[in-house]
Amino acid sequence: MEKKLTVDVCLSPYLYPVHHRDDTIVVVIDILRATSAMCTAFHYGVDKMIPVATVEEATEYKNQGFMVGAERNGVALDGFDFGNSPFSYMTDKIKGQTIVISTTNGTQAIEAAKDAYQVVIGAFTNISALCDYLIAQNRSVLLLCSGWKNRFNWEDSMFAGAVTNRLLKAGMHKTGDASLAMAFLYDQSQKNQIKFLRNSSHAERLASLGLKKDIKYCFQLDQTSIIPVLKGKYLVKLS
Amino acid sequence: MEKKLTVDVCLSPYLYPVHHRDDTIVVVIDILRATSAMCTAFHYGVDKMIPVATVEEATEYKNQGFMVGAERNGVALDGFDFGNSPFSYMTDKIKGQTIVISTTNGTQAIEAAKDAYQVVIGAFTNISALCDYLIAQNRSVLLLCSGWKNRFNWEDSMFAGAVTNRLLKAGMHKTGDASLAMAFLYDQSQKNQIKFLRNSSHAERLASLGLKKDIKYCFQLDQTSIIPVLKGKYLVKLS
Repeated sequence: MEKKLTVDVCLSPYLYPVHHRDDTIVVVIDILRATSAMCTAFHYGVDKMIPVATVEEATEYKNQGFMVGAERNGVALDGFDFGNSPFSYMTDKIKGQTIVISTTNGTQAIEAAKDAYQVVIGAFTNISALCDYLIAQNRSVLLLCSGWKNRFNWEDSMFAGAVTNRLLKAGMHKTGDASLAMAFLYDQSQKNQIKFLRNSSHAERLASLGLKKDIKYCFQLDQTSIIPVLKGKYLVKLS
Repeated sequence: MEKKLTVDVCLSPYLYPVHHRDDTIVVVIDILRATSAMCTAFHYGVDKMIPVATVEEATEYKNQGFMVGAERNGVALDGFDFGNSPFSYMTDKIKGQTIVISTTNGTQAIEAAKDAYQVVIGAFTNISALCDYLIAQNRSVLLLCSGWKNRFNWEDSMFAGAVTNRLLKAGMHKTGDASLAMAFLYDQSQKNQIKFLRNSSHAERLASLGLKKDIKYCFQLDQTSIIPVLKGKYLVKLS
């Protein structure tokens, strides 16, 4: 019998234990801005990234001499080299380097899923490469939204809907209502994305911090064909 | 300063700890079919209901001589008096009685929220009475979707969206993106509800069990003005 390949959507890292299966590829999603920034960093030549959940771990790595990105609540933390803005990683100084990164939501989601069959990093900026890869694997997929402090968020869920649509079109099957609802939500929101972004709580938060340029960048499709993948404690370029 | 009243949506009982606040009224939602059935039972004169999470508890009450409703995965369990169908409660024999009920999802959500400031029962069948009550309380509201085995489900989320729309119109404020997204989802789905219900996983499940009549009933607005409310271990009629 042919294997039935499914696409499932998990709307919060807190729900990960409910959605976990041993055999799925997990796509970690934090559009504003961790996974977008990670894709950018690899595009600009970073060799490895070490995602860590806590500021304490980030500080420890900093003290060991690593370059470290650390962000909480939309703000880059003092004493570190980067925050969470993709633009901060558009620099030659990261080329060939190993960079540590800790963010409010995205690195927590990676931590939650670290024992999955495979963990890859998704963003609008690598969406086509990501979907092509997922479709080629002949394996079920779980789209894991980082959300906002374990709550549902708009932009991660929309991205999950966008990917779901592409995977369903390629012959995969939805499992559960979240994939159905997010795919529908994405289609509908496309008709008026700007209006909805204005209402999304984290876009509001970032706009109030003067980061509209970041928001715009993070919604641009296909800025890179690189897919970061978790290997042990490292994110590396999928080859 | 005037108190800012919020409406929040929790998409799974598993997420309840993330959304819990000490001061909110929690609306438990299990459209197909637990909370719809509870509203029906009270409309048909039941005096009290005892929601229990496990079949073991339900069996214990049955052995003590109580009338008991017990359902798992859409099917009424053998050896009990009722399942989860609203139609099974449309009978004179429940008048003035205390009935125990245990279902796949709804009674688990009640269990999760039992220590909230107040727990009330919501369904399309009591939506207007429910919203009028909530608007009159001058208190923030959390809409708790029972979902399907801790996953997001379509019909509970749509109901949360419908209630959110009404509460926002009455001057309450959304908090977080789930309320925004579900309100939008409800509006959009209204344009083609039948098509979407066909795609919803639990509607599919019930239809395959020959329960289309139940589905139709559970989506009818305002069949009753009764709001069940949790008092200790009992659901009683809000007075």
